[in-house]
Amino acid sequence: MDEQPINFVVFSGTDDKLQALAVMTAGAAALGKRVNIFLQYWGLDAFSKAKIGADHGLAPEAGAEGRAKVDALAAAGQASWAETLRQAKDLGEVDIQACSLSMDVLALEESDLDPLVDGVEGVTAFYLNAGDGQIVFI
Amino acid sequence: MDEQPINFVVFSGTDDKLQALAVMTAGAAALGKRVNIFLQYWGLDAFSKAKIGADHGLAPEAGAEGRAKVDALAAAGQASWAETLRQAKDLGEVDIQACSLSMDVLALEESDLDPLVDGVEGVTAFYLNAGDGQIVFI
Amino acid sequence: MDEQPINFVVFSGTDDKLQALAVMTAGAAALGKRVNIFLQYWGLDAFSKAKIGADHGLAPEAGAEGRAKVDALAAAGQASWAETLRQAKDLGEVDIQACSLSMDVLALEESDLDPLVDGVEGVTAFYLNAGDGQIVFI
Repeated sequence: MDEQPINFVVFSGTDDKLQALAVMTAGAAALGKRVNIFLQYWGLDAFSKAKIGADHGLAPEAGAEGRAKVDALAAAGQASWAETLRQAKDLGEVDIQACSLSMDVLALEESDLDPLVDGVEGVTAFYLNAGDGQIVFI
Repeated sequence: MDEQPINFVVFSGTDDKLQALAVMTAGAAALGKRVNIFLQYWGLDAFSKAKIGADHGLAPEAGAEGRAKVDALAAAGQASWAETLRQAKDLGEVDIQACSLSMDVLALEESDLDPLVDGVEGVTAFYLNAGDGQIVFI
Repeated sequence: MDEQPINFVVFSGTDDKLQALAVMTAGAAALGKRVNIFLQYWGLDAFSKAKIGADHGLAPEAGAEGRAKVDALAAAGQASWAETLRQAKDLGEVDIQACSLSMDVLALEESDLDPLVDGVEGVTAFYLNAGDGQIVFI
């Protein structure tokens, strides 16, 4: 493993993709890798105070059968993606930034965001922080 | 930043994801980074002359509230993703290629494509042009 | 091209995205690049014995017109994504692993998976196998 961060651009806002993000973030943090998360569009929307605890739906291909399986796991006490991300931030270096252009699209102010979000930045700052590390679009 | 290009494989064809592509492309071009864009399936479909000006919809999780916010911004004069990509091509080194296999799937000829598209290539050529640069699937 | 593998995290389970995965995998294998595929959620679901031959639908933006084009190609004898992946495994070094957490979500046992899948691993093992190679989320 090199010392470059792994950088997630989070566009999608369904609970299953956000869970995949949380698991990959926690895994990287456990390996001592720095993680940068850059929130756009519906990914950003899901991190607003008003919506972070809401049901964000699943990918369309989940169907009723997939929905039932995900619900069963949640009922059995699986941590939500937001909880997993909070734990990953305690464990390692995880920085979560909102995309400034997407803040405009969604008419959000910084005070509307959940405390999981560390700040707001533009795409140029995202690239500079990403350095030569992987960029993964979710 | 190294001197490797950043390489976007654009599979999705909704206006919000294409806007995210345009913003990331413009940001990379502004930093002097070369950008390669490889169009597949519905991403390619959106770059056909017949459809580039059409409404391509949004990701399913946008919902009616997301739709209203995106429409409000467009009404306020936000540049379309196609305009932003045209500006990025003027500003920096941005090469847009159609995937030859997806051309077959969609029964498109090169003359059916918007002039934003620089040519048609196979996946092997895409990898060779990508070199050691990031590959980002959208 | 460096000697690092290319690493696909396959979250989505629609036939068009899996076809894009298969084409990118075959292209990388043809270039002598190692490929690691890590199956999550609906991508994993599509590799179960019970479902690998089923219709997995298309991305929502395909619409009726896209559906008709994809069906026409299949009727004309285009290889399925599963067949293309089998050929890629014969041709080069392609390793396909199921995400252990997603196995739990979907209540799958290793014996439920198609023989295309080489094993089950956690996200930490995925990162260690990925090394410094590209990580592409599909």
